[in-house]
Amino acid sequence: MPLDPDAASEITAFRWVPPFAQGLVRDLRIRWALEEIGRDYRVRLLDATRPRPDDYFCEQPFGQVPYFKDEEVELFESGAILIHLGMQDERLLPTDHSARMRAIAWLIASLNSVEPAILPMLMITIFNRGEPWVDEARPKFIERIEQRLKCVSDALGDKEWLEGRFTIGDLMLVTVLRQLRGTGILEKFPSLSAYVKRGEERPAFKQALSDQLAVFREHEPQPEGEAA
Amino acid sequence: MPLDPDAASEITAFRWVPPFAQGLVRDLRIRWALEEIGRDYRVRLLDATRPRPDDYFCEQPFGQVPYFKDEEVELFESGAILIHLGMQDERLLPTDHSARMRAIAWLIASLNSVEPAILPMLMITIFNRGEPWVDEARPKFIERIEQRLKCVSDALGDKEWLEGRFTIGDLMLVTVLRQLRGTGILEKFPSLSAYVKRGEERPAFKQALSDQLAVFREHEPQPEGEAA
Repeated sequence: MPLDPDAASEITAFRWVPPFAQGLVRDLRIRWALEEIGRDYRVRLLDATRPRPDDYFCEQPFGQVPYFKDEEVELFESGAILIHLGMQDERLLPTDHSARMRAIAWLIASLNSVEPAILPMLMITIFNRGEPWVDEARPKFIERIEQRLKCVSDALGDKEWLEGRFTIGDLMLVTVLRQLRGTGILEKFPSLSAYVKRGEERPAFKQALSDQLAVFREHEPQPEGEAA
Repeated sequence: MPLDPDAASEITAFRWVPPFAQGLVRDLRIRWALEEIGRDYRVRLLDATRPRPDDYFCEQPFGQVPYFKDEEVELFESGAILIHLGMQDERLLPTDHSARMRAIAWLIASLNSVEPAILPMLMITIFNRGEPWVDEARPKFIERIEQRLKCVSDALGDKEWLEGRFTIGDLMLVTVLRQLRGTGILEKFPSLSAYVKRGEERPAFKQALSDQLAVFREHEPQPEGEAA
């Protein structure tokens, strides 16, 4: 059982986030990878609803989660943390240089060619809800998402994983595509939808998700009293 | 002189792009890195103004440039190509694992925490120009850019480069921030503005930029005749 308060590896995570973000916060990526390789880790919780402490920005320049440290590194950016873990364990990343770089290419494609198409639509939907321009902008953003998903779907073809075997490239892409839940967009690409399900059915994913959600349940805000 | 039609390393680039994109197309990142290490390369040109040939998607799943190949790898995503080159040459990426991973963290932060804040503003400005919602949306997007630039500026502090010495993390961040040219946003962060200038003053950058622009000059579209 990887969760261990005395583990050498530490990640940061949020104590609680609103339901739309539960199961999507990026520490999930690292929990999942650590579960895949059975590596123990401990969790340091931060308050998502308040400004991050000043000194946290020395660790994570953007104040985000996860930050990661172990005996070897102090790292920010989930993509970099996954590459670090992958370099330590073949189950996450092949050792052959060419195959390794292909997996890293897919990890970066997920972060820079797929997710940036998805995020503007999510952000305006969540943070600019009700503003008059949002309804006009949304179809443009959805069009860009669908263009990118078509490319990914074509590249995946009928393979189980992007490069034939599960790597951190798949781990990243699955977590990026999961952000489309509830939008109906992913369902237009049945092979991608099935691919995400294959990721979600991995025991390591299930454990990671369950551990992230357990923290939120434990710290669910209570209705405030009048004096609060 | 790295440009050599018989070189073993090949990149793809566009034959011509409109002025707003000249000097920003992502093959610049790879040209710059190859110049830093004096590695010869050849260029395969694609037509940006027409649909990419079907078989190009087998090389680059999103039809973008650059695609890269050498004796070892066939790669897409400029970030992955830079990591590949960095692993082969210490001038781009330290060999110490911890320092190496910090540089990779900055490369990924540039692609996933900085650029995704910049792109929506650029895209709506260029591709949705004149649509009524754009003027209302722009200030929201600019606010997000400035939040991210403040974090980067704080992390850079008064250092010359992000982690003390020049790495592919700096190379990536400089090319990401250059996309703000003409917007006046970068100028609000004088230390970042000076940082980008330091990057642009490197001889390897200058050569790479000059080589990208030379291709566009050579293939500048001529005014079409009546029969065209």
